Amino acid sequence: MTDTADIQAGLPTAARRHLPDAPFLVAARGGIPERVPVWFMRQAGRSLPEYRAVREGVPMLAACFDPELVREVTLQPVRRHGVDAAILFSDIVVPLVAAGVDLDIVAGTGPVVAEPVRTPDAVAALPTLDPAAVAPVAEAVRLLTAALGDTPLIGFAGAPFTLASYLVEGGPSRNHEHTKALMYSDPETWHALLDRLADITLTFLRAQLAAGVDAVQLFDSWAGALSERDYRQYVLPHSARVLSGLADAGVPRIHFGVGTGALLGAMREAGADVVGVDWRTPLDEAVRRVAAAPGEFAAGPVVQGNLDPAVLFAGDEAVRAHAERIVAEGRSADGHVFNLGHGVLPQTDPDVLTRLVELVHRLPVR
Amino acid sequence: MTDTADIQAGLPTAARRHLPDAPFLVAARGGIPERVPVWFMRQAGRSLPEYRAVREGVPMLAACFDPELVREVTLQPVRRHGVDAAILFSDIVVPLVAAGVDLDIVAGTGPVVAEPVRTPDAVAALPTLDPAAVAPVAEAVRLLTAALGDTPLIGFAGAPFTLASYLVEGGPSRNHEHTKALMYSDPETWHALLDRLADITLTFLRAQLAAGVDAVQLFDSWAGALSERDYRQYVLPHSARVLSGLADAGVPRIHFGVGTGALLGAMREAGADVVGVDWRTPLDEAVRRVAAAPGEFAAGPVVQGNLDPAVLFAGDEAVRAHAERIVAEGRSADGHVFNLGHGVLPQTDPDVLTRLVELVHRLPVR
Repeated sequence: MTDTADIQAGLPTAARRHLPDAPFLVAARGGIPERVPVWFMRQAGRSLPEYRAVREGVPMLAACFDPELVREVTLQPVRRHGVDAAILFSDIVVPLVAAGVDLDIVAGTGPVVAEPVRTPDAVAALPTLDPAAVAPVAEAVRLLTAALGDTPLIGFAGAPFTLASYLVEGGPSRNHEHTKALMYSDPETWHALLDRLADITLTFLRAQLAAGVDAVQLFDSWAGALSERDYRQYVLPHSARVLSGLADAGVPRIHFGVGTGALLGAMREAGADVVGVDWRTPLDEAVRRVAAAPGEFAAGPVVQGNLDPAVLFAGDEAVRAHAERIVAEGRSADGHVFNLGHGVLPQTDPDVLTRLVELVHRLPVR
Repeated sequence: MTDTADIQAGLPTAARRHLPDAPFLVAARGGIPERVPVWFMRQAGRSLPEYRAVREGVPMLAACFDPELVREVTLQPVRRHGVDAAILFSDIVVPLVAAGVDLDIVAGTGPVVAEPVRTPDAVAALPTLDPAAVAPVAEAVRLLTAALGDTPLIGFAGAPFTLASYLVEGGPSRNHEHTKALMYSDPETWHALLDRLADITLTFLRAQLAAGVDAVQLFDSWAGALSERDYRQYVLPHSARVLSGLADAGVPRIHFGVGTGALLGAMREAGADVVGVDWRTPLDEAVRRVAAAPGEFAAGPVVQGNLDPAVLFAGDEAVRAHAERIVAEGRSADGHVFNLGHGVLPQTDPDVLTRLVELVHRLPVR
């Protein structure tokens, strides 16, 4: 384990913009914003024709390391939809690639790791991440904060468990059997692996913070594959080390996973200022679970979510009814950032998203 | 909607074997069996070399309509593992195919429906199921009950929501967006569709019961994609009609879905004698949720599950620890049928399953 203090050294405090009225940041800190802030996970992506146009012929990983392209793709949904936050265009595996792990993103499949990591030796051989290796990402952040005006920029990284699943399985997996086999059969190697990945994640997020992001979201896409007991034993300590290692930056830390209704309290406890909620748990119930979690936080429960992305295929009337219910339920929190309960699906009509932003902005905050 | 009374006509009461001491049936009825009964979802399948041998060159749907092949494949795991129940080898889409829906099971993809069902006209045009069309399945049941000795046979069907998702999406779907779009945008058509599918499911299960199955399991594979609110509004009434339409047979009705921790009470309420539990919810917590559900049942809470199929890749020591915990937690129920929390994964070593059966049989019932 790298000393977290080493990773934490050198965060410039003057890097960030001062955006005291940005609705996203106000809500994320538990204050009362001028309107209900809204952004969408995967808002920069295949649902937008302008995204498909600029990505034409550019492989995913090449795109993620091209500062100008990251800038353009990240800005597209802000321009089109008027969302209240931009999220850095990146991919879960970017810090692994930057560290030197041999993997590629194969269209139609996802990340493919050349040599799956399943032994103590393979874990010991994992590289660390030199912040210089993500300099193009940091450059993209600087280009973006210069271009975004008053719109906050959210940094982004995958959580140790989700990264581990890619490395252990060798690619995307439905059942995570090799990952869980390692976890259950060799806890020592498991914890060593997650410790390494926590270092990489922390280094990556701190590089984004040093470059000026206004908030961060830690995606534990697959945490919902675990029981709460296993999450607490095998995952939470490592995600907590990442989140606590960001505390000095003073920016909102969002923590999100899918199918995590039973984990919402634990995910708060890991050190999340904002807990993302998928569509399976009503938002007011999610607020109760988050509020009940122990820990020292700057504000009471703040939640993000939780419209089912499939609702966007059901017509304006259904979208309106669901959005109104969610905003009403979100009023039981100290703050609510409207979002989907998972990423924008590729076939989504972008005009539906634009109209949804307008609708959410018209709804009363309290 | 077909009159349920019509579907219910003609169930011969003398068809079933008398198996008063079969541990699976005793536990499923909330009694105290001589040993903890155990079977595995997808126990008849790709994990077994003898299965791969007899399926060689035989398409899935052809296999499901071949009584001799169904008999052989269903018996294989009983012979090999000594499990306490056989489950009829079939597929979720078998009753749809028998009814005349144009679909095929494509290797590596799953069911592919020629014309997805997304309009009122398409719903109105859906065929009904003539029990004669599943005569080969009924014949397989008769062959099996003759061959199984004292081992019970579990009948099997997909629940209306899961069937609807195949029909509306046109195949397997991760996000069920077309299904949910129909559900949210046109509830009338949605309920008409699920009503049709409940008829088909009920007809199929009653044909199996008439031929002699000793229990039934209703698989709602994808119910976990819904919030409890939506499950109750859009799905539960139809699954309840299926389950209540089987009550006169007097056999245990098992109701199972994946990722349904928040739905366990509602799935009991639908009319389930036994509620299947995946691995995300501790079994004692699942018992509390099932026990709290309203309804008239012959016994108190009975649960089935809940070993993570991925644990079978983690070595005997991990399997033992998990199995012992699950059996201990299961003692808080009136009855516990040991099972996995989802189907056997294709890469599972069958010897691990055999040793697990031996282990569970050695553990004390109370």
